[in-house]
Amino acid sequence: MTGGGLGLEEARAHLASQPFSVLLGARLVAFTPEQTVLEIDSRPDLLQQNGYLHGGLLAYAADNALTYAAGTALGPAVLTGGVTIEYLRPGRGRTLRATARVVHAGRRRAVCACDLEMIADDGSSRLCAVAQGTVLAVDGSR
Amino acid sequence: MTGGGLGLEEARAHLASQPFSVLLGARLVAFTPEQTVLEIDSRPDLLQQNGYLHGGLLAYAADNALTYAAGTALGPAVLTGGVTIEYLRPGRGRTLRATARVVHAGRRRAVCACDLEMIADDGSSRLCAVAQGTVLAVDGSR
Amino acid sequence: MTGGGLGLEEARAHLASQPFSVLLGARLVAFTPEQTVLEIDSRPDLLQQNGYLHGGLLAYAADNALTYAAGTALGPAVLTGGVTIEYLRPGRGRTLRATARVVHAGRRRAVCACDLEMIADDGSSRLCAVAQGTVLAVDGSR
Amino acid sequence: MTGGGLGLEEARAHLASQPFSVLLGARLVAFTPEQTVLEIDSRPDLLQQNGYLHGGLLAYAADNALTYAAGTALGPAVLTGGVTIEYLRPGRGRTLRATARVVHAGRRRAVCACDLEMIADDGSSRLCAVAQGTVLAVDGSR
Repeated sequence: MTGGGLGLEEARAHLASQPFSVLLGARLVAFTPEQTVLEIDSRPDLLQQNGYLHGGLLAYAADNALTYAAGTALGPAVLTGGVTIEYLRPGRGRTLRATARVVHAGRRRAVCACDLEMIADDGSSRLCAVAQGTVLAVDGSR
Repeated sequence: MTGGGLGLEEARAHLASQPFSVLLGARLVAFTPEQTVLEIDSRPDLLQQNGYLHGGLLAYAADNALTYAAGTALGPAVLTGGVTIEYLRPGRGRTLRATARVVHAGRRRAVCACDLEMIADDGSSRLCAVAQGTVLAVDGSR
Repeated sequence: MTGGGLGLEEARAHLASQPFSVLLGARLVAFTPEQTVLEIDSRPDLLQQNGYLHGGLLAYAADNALTYAAGTALGPAVLTGGVTIEYLRPGRGRTLRATARVVHAGRRRAVCACDLEMIADDGSSRLCAVAQGTVLAVDGSR
Repeated sequence: MTGGGLGLEEARAHLASQPFSVLLGARLVAFTPEQTVLEIDSRPDLLQQNGYLHGGLLAYAADNALTYAAGTALGPAVLTGGVTIEYLRPGRGRTLRATARVVHAGRRRAVCACDLEMIADDGSSRLCAVAQGTVLAVDGSR
């Protein structure tokens, strides 16, 4: 994880070093403690059986957006401790946007919140899940 | 989601109808209320930057294993309400195994638990995350 | 639970019918979907060993504030399905204030968020925990 | 919190130093990593409006049982990071029993699980909630 003085370009380079994020087509479009935004465009291979984005993809997006947001506060070496996601509506639309923010950060632990919205073709957005998570600074002790 | 009298073969056919699960190479190896097991073999494109399975993949596996487990109790039409995952150790090994069970099921709601283990080449297993989730029977009201 | 067209006075009467809430000295000071506020004044018998409000008291406040907030959307008969609370800082101060809001409500399920703050003698506030929860409309099926 | 080589008597003395736990009548009946048990007898002033134990009391019991369980692994100075509780059935019966165990403990963080049961007059038990939580060793950095 990057952060702690790093900028958007460094965070993007870090995301590009996660093969799983590359597989899913995730991109970072903002990277600050107030607003870290990760987006994924809908694709046929990201869907579940009813044609919506799979809930597990939303869980990935929440997990990763929370972790990057925490990185803006805790610095480069962090690990996600836990995440809670509540699903609200089917993931239907053009693009999934996960917007995370740091709720509280100490020296070794940050609690972050994340809204997951679907962006439609006309640019309108619809909240489809909310998440909350804890991220820990790494010192070999997780 | 299938379940409620359905067997492992039907559940596997259902999983095969989720393009995202196919993309990730997920397979169902057990499908009962006491033990619903979803496995994913490690692959280079499922990793994060340090060479471990990405936490978001574990979140997908927990989400889907919990949902299938609930399907054994609630029947074919269910949606996941929420999931909490706690990460314990890096996802290092040959195969990720998510083992879910129904903790309690009413008529319209099931609470399930899931252990996520990594299976090593020698067949030994190591717990790397635990999850808990709620799944709701669908009636158009989520 | 009251709500669904009910006002603050009715909600207060409902809270007064919960002996546990009376024991803890909880009061409702707002009761709308956007802002349902439950307050508890600090007392010696609500503390833990270090002189802060006990975390379990914060958990009670989050649980109840979330449930009342959901009642504004789902109507009089609801039950809390699950709650996640993250502790941020010790509960130190004059009054605990739990402010909950409805994030999303369907016909049978509401997801709510809650901020828990401590109010100091000078009226300043400090966030000490955040919570997220799901509340279900009751129809005998939980 | 006590633990880390301490025994049941020391843990009980610690619980007695929490005025809130004394108010609620909580008692520790076991204190090991595999099984830390906290019990509370039902009383009229612990109920909600329908005559069941208040959900907030169950949340307190889960929170405290998880924290004591973690203390058996992490030692005397710990703070609860976060707790997720899922309610399954009304808290009806003579005694609430919260049984927590350490799922995984590192040097600075423990993840624990907790079952909450109601014990009836005839001694039979019924699961009424499950919880999962994270507890952190204290070093001034929460």
